[in-house]
Amino acid sequence: MESFVCTFCAKSYGVDPLQTFCPTCHEPLLYTDSREKKKFHLSYEHSLQIFSDFLPLSSVNIDLSLGEGNTPLIRLRNVEKKSKLPPIFAKNETVNPTHSFKDRGTAVAIQKARSFGFKRIGTVSTGNMAASTAAYGSRAGLKTFVLVKEETASEKLIAAGIYNPVLIKVQGDYGELFRTSILLGKENNIHFMNSVDPFRIEGYKATGFEIFLQFNQVIPDFILTPASSGGHLIGIMRAFRDLKQHGFIKKYPYFVGVQAEGCSPIASAFKRKKVNVQRIRKAKTIAQAISNPDPPAGNLLLRMIRNMGGTILSVPDEKILEAQRLLAELEGIFVQPASATTLAGLLAFKEQKNLKNDSTVVLILTGSGLKASSTLSLSNMNILHSSLFDLPKIIKSV
Amino acid sequence: MESFVCTFCAKSYGVDPLQTFCPTCHEPLLYTDSREKKKFHLSYEHSLQIFSDFLPLSSVNIDLSLGEGNTPLIRLRNVEKKSKLPPIFAKNETVNPTHSFKDRGTAVAIQKARSFGFKRIGTVSTGNMAASTAAYGSRAGLKTFVLVKEETASEKLIAAGIYNPVLIKVQGDYGELFRTSILLGKENNIHFMNSVDPFRIEGYKATGFEIFLQFNQVIPDFILTPASSGGHLIGIMRAFRDLKQHGFIKKYPYFVGVQAEGCSPIASAFKRKKVNVQRIRKAKTIAQAISNPDPPAGNLLLRMIRNMGGTILSVPDEKILEAQRLLAELEGIFVQPASATTLAGLLAFKEQKNLKNDSTVVLILTGSGLKASSTLSLSNMNILHSSLFDLPKIIKSV
Repeated sequence: MESFVCTFCAKSYGVDPLQTFCPTCHEPLLYTDSREKKKFHLSYEHSLQIFSDFLPLSSVNIDLSLGEGNTPLIRLRNVEKKSKLPPIFAKNETVNPTHSFKDRGTAVAIQKARSFGFKRIGTVSTGNMAASTAAYGSRAGLKTFVLVKEETASEKLIAAGIYNPVLIKVQGDYGELFRTSILLGKENNIHFMNSVDPFRIEGYKATGFEIFLQFNQVIPDFILTPASSGGHLIGIMRAFRDLKQHGFIKKYPYFVGVQAEGCSPIASAFKRKKVNVQRIRKAKTIAQAISNPDPPAGNLLLRMIRNMGGTILSVPDEKILEAQRLLAELEGIFVQPASATTLAGLLAFKEQKNLKNDSTVVLILTGSGLKASSTLSLSNMNILHSSLFDLPKIIKSV
Repeated sequence: MESFVCTFCAKSYGVDPLQTFCPTCHEPLLYTDSREKKKFHLSYEHSLQIFSDFLPLSSVNIDLSLGEGNTPLIRLRNVEKKSKLPPIFAKNETVNPTHSFKDRGTAVAIQKARSFGFKRIGTVSTGNMAASTAAYGSRAGLKTFVLVKEETASEKLIAAGIYNPVLIKVQGDYGELFRTSILLGKENNIHFMNSVDPFRIEGYKATGFEIFLQFNQVIPDFILTPASSGGHLIGIMRAFRDLKQHGFIKKYPYFVGVQAEGCSPIASAFKRKKVNVQRIRKAKTIAQAISNPDPPAGNLLLRMIRNMGGTILSVPDEKILEAQRLLAELEGIFVQPASATTLAGLLAFKEQKNLKNDSTVVLILTGSGLKASSTLSLSNMNILHSSLFDLPKIIKSV
C-alpha cells in the first residue's frame, strides 16, 4: 500500500502526481508505503536500483536514468587543520549528471511521470532544477515546461535551454508562479516536479543512504545541508528516519540546515521558535540557488528539525564567499555559493555547539561552481602576464 | 622494476617525472613495470585503489584524491533510434570532480609528484587540464603553475583561477610554450604534468578498465575518443593492451580518434599514411579543448592505432554542433564541443565501416558543456516570455 500523507493533518490520500500539497492545510504531502522488509541491493551499479526498496519504485526503467548518484565522500583534512575542526567529509553532489543534487530527485520523479503515463512534465526553478528537469525530460522523450524568473542569468538559461525544453521567462512573483504552476499542471495534465514534489523528495533519500554506507553503516554526528524550499534536507532526514524504522540505526545525526542571511525565512522562524515560516519580501543574497523567499516546505522542515534534532541557521554573504574560497584553495573543490553555506555554517556554529574532537561532520555540497561563475570576478583573481621570453624570469621570481 | 620507455628507439630509462620525452628521438616516454600478477581490487571504493595494480602506484594516498572516476556508462537508445545505429553507450567523463576526464590523469600524476617530493607542479593547458591540475594541486598543498595562452576565455580562467594557482597568461606560440615548460620544469624542479606526461597517460587507463568491467568483462567493438595531443586515447588503448597482456581479453576493440577538421594534424597524417604528424599553422575550430596544432604524442598515436587497429578521422564544426545538440536534446547530456566529436565521428563513419546491427559502440564524453558555454548563444535557443496572467494561455498553446 502506498499513499501521500499530510503529517500536519495526519491525513492520507491516494498517490497523485498532480497533488503536491494537502487539500486541507496546504502543507506538502509526503510519499509513504507499507513495504516491510527493506534492504540495499548492493550488487547493482545504479543508485536507483541499489535503493529501490526505499524509493517509490516497484521497478526501475534504467533507460530514464543518467547514472546519477554514487557520489564521492571525501575528507577535508586541510580545512580541518586550518580551522581547527573535527573530521569533516564532503558529500560531493556536484558530480551528478547535470552537476547538482537535483538529479537525484528528478531521476525518481521522471520514473513516476513515465509510469503514470504523463506526456508532459514541468518545473519552476531558479537554475539547478531547470537544467536537471530539462535533461531528464529530454532523455525520457517528454515535453518539458521550464518556468523561470524574468531576470534569470543567461548562464542558467543556456544550461537548461541546451536540452530544448519549452523555456518560459515569467514576469511576476516567484512564489505565485510556483502556486500557479501546480494549478496549470492540474488543468493541463503536466506533472510539475517542483522543489517539494513528494517523489523528488524521496529521491534525495539516496544521498542519506549513501552517506550511511560510505561511513560503513555508522552515522555521522552532524550533517549540514543548504536550505531553500526545504525539500532537499527533508529528503535526507527521511533517509535516516527510514534507517531507524528498519533497524539499521538507533539515533539520528544532528541535522543542520543553512540559509543565506539575505534569504533566511526558515532560520528566522526557527530562532524565534515559531511554527510557521513568514515569507520575506525580497531575497538578497549571492547564493541564488537557495534564494526562495517563500519556502513551500518551510513549516514541514521546522517541524521535522524539532522532532528529529537539529537546527536551522543563516550565514552572511561574505562568509559564504570566504567558505567557497576555502573549499577551492585548500581542497580543490569548486562549489556554487549555495553549497559553501555548509562550511560557513559549520564555522559559525562550531563555537556554540558540542563539537568534540572526534565528532564527524558531513557537508552536502549541492552544486558546481561552474553554474554560478557569473558571481565570481576575474578581477579578484591573481593573473600574471608574460611573454615566452620573460617566462623563465617570472617563474624564478614566484 | 619500473621504467620509462621510448617505443620508437626501444630504449629504457629510469623513472624521472621531469623527463617526459625521449632524449634521443624526442617522442613521448611511456611508463612500464614488470609486476606480473595483476588484478582488480573490486572491494575498494576509489578508482585509484581498484586499479592500483595497473597504475604506477605502489600505494595510494587517498587524501590526494577527489573521488575521480567510477563514471556512468549509459545507453543512448534515442540517438540509436533517430540515426539508425547499433547499440551506443556513453562513458560520461563529465561527472569527474572538475567535470572532465583530465582528473583521472591528474589524480595519478599528483600521487607521483608527492611521492617524489616535489613542492611545485605545473601544466600548460587550454582549459580542462588547467582546472584539473589547479584543483589537485590545491588539495595536495603544492604550489601550482598554470600556463595558458594570452587569449584564453575568461570562463576558463575563472574555472582554474578559483583554486588560486600561479596563473600566467603567456604570449607566444602554444607548441613552443609546451616545450619551454618542460625545460623550465627541469631548471626549477617543477613537475609539469602536461597532456602527455607518462603518469597522466597511465591514469587514463582507468577509463578503459571501467568500460571493460561495466560491459561485464566483454569488450565493446568500437571506442571513439576525441584526439588532441593524443595522450587520452593512448591511455585508453594501453588499458586494453594491459588487459590482453594479462589474459583478460583476446582481441582489441577498434579504436577511433576523432579530431575537429579545423585542427586535424593526426587525422590528416593517418589519411595520407604518414608516420610523422605535420604541425598545422593555426587551429580553427569551435572544439577548443582539442585544438592542439602540434600534438606531442601524434606520432605515437599513429603508430599505436596502426598496430592495435583503428582509425583517426576528422569532423567539421557544424557536425560537431549538431552532435552536441543531439546528445542534449535526445539524451539529456550536455557536453562541450570537443566531446561531441565522438558522436559526429560515429555518424560520419557508420556508412564506411562494418557496423553490424549488434556491434557495440562506446563514445567517450570528455568534458562538460558548462565549461564551454561561451560557444553557445541564447539567440539560438527558443525562449518564450510571459506574464503570470498570460501563462495559462501560453501553456495551452504549446
